Amino acid sequence: MRNIRLTIEYDGTDYFGWQIQKRKPTVQGEIKKVLERILEEKITLIGAARTDSGVHALGQVANFKTKNKKLTTDSFIKALNSLLLSDIVIKEVKKVADSFHARYSAKSKIYRYHILNQPFPSALERRFSWHIPGLLHWKKIRKASKYFVGKYDFSPFSVTGSSRKNKQCTVRDFKIRKVKNLYILQIEADYFLYKMVRRIVGTLLEVGRGKIEPEYISPLLHKKASTLRAQTAPPHGLFLVKVKY
Amino acid sequence: MRNIRLTIEYDGTDYFGWQIQKRKPTVQGEIKKVLERILEEKITLIGAARTDSGVHALGQVANFKTKNKKLTTDSFIKALNSLLLSDIVIKEVKKVADSFHARYSAKSKIYRYHILNQPFPSALERRFSWHIPGLLHWKKIRKASKYFVGKYDFSPFSVTGSSRKNKQCTVRDFKIRKVKNLYILQIEADYFLYKMVRRIVGTLLEVGRGKIEPEYISPLLHKKASTLRAQTAPPHGLFLVKVKY
Repeated sequence: MRNIRLTIEYDGTDYFGWQIQKRKPTVQGEIKKVLERILEEKITLIGAARTDSGVHALGQVANFKTKNKKLTTDSFIKALNSLLLSDIVIKEVKKVADSFHARYSAKSKIYRYHILNQPFPSALERRFSWHIPGLLHWKKIRKASKYFVGKYDFSPFSVTGSSRKNKQCTVRDFKIRKVKNLYILQIEADYFLYKMVRRIVGTLLEVGRGKIEPEYISPLLHKKASTLRAQTAPPHGLFLVKVKY
Repeated sequence: MRNIRLTIEYDGTDYFGWQIQKRKPTVQGEIKKVLERILEEKITLIGAARTDSGVHALGQVANFKTKNKKLTTDSFIKALNSLLLSDIVIKEVKKVADSFHARYSAKSKIYRYHILNQPFPSALERRFSWHIPGLLHWKKIRKASKYFVGKYDFSPFSVTGSSRKNKQCTVRDFKIRKVKNLYILQIEADYFLYKMVRRIVGTLLEVGRGKIEPEYISPLLHKKASTLRAQTAPPHGLFLVKVKY
């Protein structure tokens, strides 16, 4: 058996997330269907991250095992992309070691969240950013974002339903870039709990609106403050950027 | 009568261009319909540029005259945007001098064309760029682009159907920027003939593919070469960026 790794970009707007579901279009479901059609065998497709309904990806990673030996990279990518709808694109196909597992071998993941902070919405960015018309205190948001870097129990920034019992995650990096009125929040961690990025972004919005101070983040992460009541940021501003191995 | 100027952003994907047509969705048609509903009077909406089917805009400009005096900027913009679909956004509403005419008062316009030059397509950029998988000689394209700057008869870079008899246009500026694999070609001119930007981009592609040399552009603009047989670049890579007055 050969172990094959895929790097995938998708516009999540029209999908019910990554994970396969009956009678609903999902990214995993579409790719599995096309792979099985080309390979003429049943396969198991393992994804690095189970992105939610509406979330996008620039570099999702998946792997599968196949008996097919003829599979040559270039023509295989072309065949895959010609059968997939244009909102899912296979960017790379690579033969990897037998032991490689898209989910368990991952060392860290990078997510990005796009906030468009201007009075009027954007026709061109509407599928790929969260529009916040009111003024936000970005200096405070930047300050608050620094508190998340480190190893903490992130359960206050998750929702029940995370499969993992250990809620400790190490956030390695948190950057905020600005391109005109678009703010790009980029976060790297070894593991992300369910809805963690969107809950962190929702909390930072509360900081930006002046409802909580940046210093409020630290006691939350040390379990010294009561659970927070921040909004969960909507999925269409979120991108899985990269999976590191 | 008050003369009102609108600045408009739109995703042209689902429209048959700017100009109003019977039984087809157009940007002008949608905005006129919503304006007449709010103002409760018939209006004439004049656009700066008649963008083609599928072409986008970041800063289209239009004007109309109204008897309505109550019209206050902020609530009026909000009302307009709440009635329009999310792929058309009014970014600014301004009272202007009676003599202002969105089309005839324009001094110059800026267009951008996006070329995505990489082996695989992009799920996220697919609506907003022309995907060219093969290698392009960008140094030659940059060299060729310089020949367009100046005052020339641009009819070799148009198609029959331009309403204007005078085919002289002054291209003031032509810039090429690169963001990863996305090349952004930006051109400013006092006037653009029908399909001129897309014909120029199509010609530059021929240069990039090595089919014609950059030096070939100059005789074309001086009417010393036969008409060219380049592809017209597709509309979905084109953006009307700004209209200067």
